[in-house]
Amino acid sequence: MREIKGEVHLSKAILAVYALIKEWQLEELKQVAVNYEIKLQEDISSEDLARIEIVYGWNAFLSENKDKLRSLKWIQKDTAGLDSIPASIRNNDQILISNMSGIHAVPITENVFGYIMSWARGIIPAITNQAHNQWDSSISTKMFSLKDKSIIVYGAGNIGIEIARTAKFFGMKTYGVNSNGRPVEYFDQCFTMDTIIEVLPQSTVVVNALPLTVISKHYFNETFFNNMNHKSLFINIGRGESVVDHDLQQALEEEVIQAAYIDVTSPEPLPEDSPLWQTKNLTITPHVSGIVEHFRDEIYPIFKDNLDQYLIDQTLVKNVYSRSKGY
Amino acid sequence: MREIKGEVHLSKAILAVYALIKEWQLEELKQVAVNYEIKLQEDISSEDLARIEIVYGWNAFLSENKDKLRSLKWIQKDTAGLDSIPASIRNNDQILISNMSGIHAVPITENVFGYIMSWARGIIPAITNQAHNQWDSSISTKMFSLKDKSIIVYGAGNIGIEIARTAKFFGMKTYGVNSNGRPVEYFDQCFTMDTIIEVLPQSTVVVNALPLTVISKHYFNETFFNNMNHKSLFINIGRGESVVDHDLQQALEEEVIQAAYIDVTSPEPLPEDSPLWQTKNLTITPHVSGIVEHFRDEIYPIFKDNLDQYLIDQTLVKNVYSRSKGY
Repeated sequence: MREIKGEVHLSKAILAVYALIKEWQLEELKQVAVNYEIKLQEDISSEDLARIEIVYGWNAFLSENKDKLRSLKWIQKDTAGLDSIPASIRNNDQILISNMSGIHAVPITENVFGYIMSWARGIIPAITNQAHNQWDSSISTKMFSLKDKSIIVYGAGNIGIEIARTAKFFGMKTYGVNSNGRPVEYFDQCFTMDTIIEVLPQSTVVVNALPLTVISKHYFNETFFNNMNHKSLFINIGRGESVVDHDLQQALEEEVIQAAYIDVTSPEPLPEDSPLWQTKNLTITPHVSGIVEHFRDEIYPIFKDNLDQYLIDQTLVKNVYSRSKGY
Repeated sequence: MREIKGEVHLSKAILAVYALIKEWQLEELKQVAVNYEIKLQEDISSEDLARIEIVYGWNAFLSENKDKLRSLKWIQKDTAGLDSIPASIRNNDQILISNMSGIHAVPITENVFGYIMSWARGIIPAITNQAHNQWDSSISTKMFSLKDKSIIVYGAGNIGIEIARTAKFFGMKTYGVNSNGRPVEYFDQCFTMDTIIEVLPQSTVVVNALPLTVISKHYFNETFFNNMNHKSLFINIGRGESVVDHDLQQALEEEVIQAAYIDVTSPEPLPEDSPLWQTKNLTITPHVSGIVEHFRDEIYPIFKDNLDQYLIDQTLVKNVYSRSKGY
């Protein structure tokens, strides 16, 4: 850890912090990464771009100036999704990319079950009646409990597993969808995109937790909804582009499925004149299901574990982006 | 099981069925209770009342004619609450009373957590914005997760225990309130109505699951809400009379507490002109949280177990009403 004051400082590589960070975390970085200049996003100028080697977080300014990032070796993204990073960087195998996959699993699962139970137990239907001062206990005829119902989760990764673990607690049957149908913890059975059709028509809840890929894009369309049970619920906490909006709207209006909840749309924000807003039995949240309450405390340890290893041999220990899988 | 055709039949005691029942269940009763005439409510006339010994279920006709029920020995109520049975019968220690306490624990718990999570995770706040085609991700600033939050349940019986068991799954701290603060499964700690004040100001969720008694009536009043945390949620799945409506309304409008969910009101149905309907951050369901999806299958085994014992020695084995406790 040789250090010479003056000239060496000027040529130090930059560790650029674009993620939310606490004061003590910043101090710790300065002590650990002594050979780097630690710079917060508000202090980074165009002249600094060529010296940035590590980025914690990301933003549009970096995307716009991607060609100037000549020293870039590692992006530790502060979200699970990497959509905001330009494809030319994502596809460049000279640049390590890691994400925050995992920290959103618990909060997203709380959204999923908050929705499932508040729909199933009449709370969301009652809110509609409450707007008209209306006590209508006939909503009880459609109410159900989770025990022995089936849930299908597209995407049996961190988020899917936490959803399945929670579904098991409530006594549900759990089916996962992954690339080859291999067994995954907390799922009673896993299927491929093709074989899931065996249980789709009998399942009560379908959750899309897939990242956006060429396979998942526009996957949830009219044909898909027609294969779902007419009493079932559809939930999208993956990406808006995986759903054909018009087909979802039609499936709900024509009661092909019972109800749906989407936390993601395409585009975002959803335009004020989108017909989705007033679609029957559709609940929309503004891409907040992954919000982590103590965000800075959750993301920092993942970055720190990776940084410790990176400083030794320029490899990472967790949450590494796989170019072959696309997430 | 001596039986003489003709005269004996006329003097048989009646087992009156006022609860919902399936055909096979009715057939089984006829085979088991051979010394009783099994009559469905639609077949019971005023002349039959004096011969009714056992009632499965209850209704207003029986309450109105309570003085004619001279042979009544046992009521197996088809609900957890016994409010609909006249006090003169409830207080008559010559009449056995049993209830359906227990079968509502799981569905009510699903309502409680459906509400908690759909509020905490922004779904209910987003529904308000959705009505105006409004994408407002600023709701995320108030969103929280359940882990490490505290929940207080007034009433550590069947329902309270199921709520606590579920709260533990989500990583919450669980505090119960019972008559003497004795330990109860799934509660980290139990308190009395007096000592709970130790943790009330720091707790995130307060649930009333108490039956209506002289102690619980109007217990949740201005003083109580003032002792709650200003970020906390209040939930009433007990009885409407336990809450002072005006005080709850004021606590919500003045943001003394964050939000509330009531499944029970006083009176029920809640009148159309009640100010509760449009009270800020209040969610109302029409006394449906206890709705059991497969109701007839859930209640019959409890009645049957009690009946088997009653036919032997006129005692019951489960869900017996305690006159000293009042539930």
